[in-house]
Amino acid sequence: MKTRVLDAFRKEYQQLLNRELRALVEKLDAPSVIKDSMIYSLEAGGKRIRPLLLFATLDAFGIDPKKGIPAAAAIEMIHTYSLIHDDLPSMDNDDLRRGKPTNHKVFGDAIAILAGDALLTYSFEVINMLSDDFAPPPVKTRLVIEMAKAAGAEGMVGGQVADMEGENKVLSLEELEYIHIHKTGKLLKFSVVAGAIMARANESLLQNLSSFAHHLGLAFQIQDDILDLVGNQQLIGKPVGSDTVNHKSTYPQLLSLEGARAALQKQIMMSKEYLKETDLNTIFLNEITDLVASRDH
Amino acid sequence: MKTRVLDAFRKEYQQLLNRELRALVEKLDAPSVIKDSMIYSLEAGGKRIRPLLLFATLDAFGIDPKKGIPAAAAIEMIHTYSLIHDDLPSMDNDDLRRGKPTNHKVFGDAIAILAGDALLTYSFEVINMLSDDFAPPPVKTRLVIEMAKAAGAEGMVGGQVADMEGENKVLSLEELEYIHIHKTGKLLKFSVVAGAIMARANESLLQNLSSFAHHLGLAFQIQDDILDLVGNQQLIGKPVGSDTVNHKSTYPQLLSLEGARAALQKQIMMSKEYLKETDLNTIFLNEITDLVASRDH
Repeated sequence: MKTRVLDAFRKEYQQLLNRELRALVEKLDAPSVIKDSMIYSLEAGGKRIRPLLLFATLDAFGIDPKKGIPAAAAIEMIHTYSLIHDDLPSMDNDDLRRGKPTNHKVFGDAIAILAGDALLTYSFEVINMLSDDFAPPPVKTRLVIEMAKAAGAEGMVGGQVADMEGENKVLSLEELEYIHIHKTGKLLKFSVVAGAIMARANESLLQNLSSFAHHLGLAFQIQDDILDLVGNQQLIGKPVGSDTVNHKSTYPQLLSLEGARAALQKQIMMSKEYLKETDLNTIFLNEITDLVASRDH
Repeated sequence: MKTRVLDAFRKEYQQLLNRELRALVEKLDAPSVIKDSMIYSLEAGGKRIRPLLLFATLDAFGIDPKKGIPAAAAIEMIHTYSLIHDDLPSMDNDDLRRGKPTNHKVFGDAIAILAGDALLTYSFEVINMLSDDFAPPPVKTRLVIEMAKAAGAEGMVGGQVADMEGENKVLSLEELEYIHIHKTGKLLKFSVVAGAIMARANESLLQNLSSFAHHLGLAFQIQDDILDLVGNQQLIGKPVGSDTVNHKSTYPQLLSLEGARAALQKQIMMSKEYLKETDLNTIFLNEITDLVASRDH
């Protein structure tokens, strides 16, 4: 196993992905304002954690990650659309996202809604841009179905509904986990599962990778809540303590800060255990898991 | 060619479709409020013109229309999501749709946005529920790509953007056609093209059916504008003259009422000419075309 550096890997594929995302929107034959709005949020400085997971999963199978770029682009479009819609005045009503004005603050509510709709719709076209040699139609069909499940009412959208219904209420740990598993977990999990589907993993391998991603997603969210409480505003790009201001239930609130940190470590440990079961070259996936636990933004 | 009655055909498949739409949403494992909101708008009394076109196209090929129900359901979900989002306060700000309160008036803006998102996302899962025997993966993949193009920035969403940009402006006939071809035309056209794709039509046949649907879509929109001017409010379910109140450009405004009626007849004639080229059993498609020209709501 050669020693490689995750940072170089991440930069290389992030650059390729960013170029592809812009090119995909620029080539659309559509009114320029909607394209500008789509590109604005795609380029608003996201961490690209979902694409990174997809690329690292392909790498774990010894597959050239470049082949997965259309799938990574599709997932990032869905993630971006969800942020645009979540930030709207009738939803979370956020003016800033990663330190920049939110989409509707720049383009107005109507274009923001439509840019989200356009990104979501385009993602299903874009994922079909995977080469037919690499991902023949049965693979593409499966990817589309799983992506729709992860993003829709049974996944991300359902999580956002539950999140809104939970505002101004004290949630149980179970309710809080429902929100996170759906709102952020399902699409994160799909990023790994998509890699496994493209690699034609058998069912037991797919299950282990799926469980790895499940626990990683929970770890990601617990760390998010911890950062909202004790993070550095400059680094996270939004006011620290906004969860408290917005009366959102969080892990530290339900478990105490120390309890949340312990829960984070437990999720990290469990995700690594599932990863060990896979017998793949998981050096990057392991390193990403460590990063999630220690990230400061 | 046996003589059959479009009305009986329409009722039979509309009933099957309505049952399927409800069942598809009911079986979702999601918060009940989002399912209620999705079903509310799916059952708000639409004319189901797009599904009817899809069923009639399959029938023209001698294929049992039942086989196309998942595709018809997917298209109707996309149409319904577009109405929910278009009615939002930041878009057209409509309180009534077909005589009933609009989705956001009943469920609030946030749930309305999310119900639209969920319907759009689900449509890509639902269209993949076509049986594999009838529509093997390469057919499904093509349907997904064409549906995304019809619904997205290059299609329906682009048309809605152009429509909003055109408000309070006097548009040229060309600009007005751009809006209609995209906002309503592309998804209408896809309803016919989807039938042709499932029937494995060759390219020239597909082109003729696509052109038929293109002109039918324009006819549909011209009649919509005429009805807004001279229609019966009870029948159309919204105030007559709302285009004038909303400062929307219309065909009667640009061409005079008589000019608009002449343009309608021309589009009907052209759509029928393309239909004649197909050598299919187009008795229902022809009758639908007549209905579009003479409808009163």
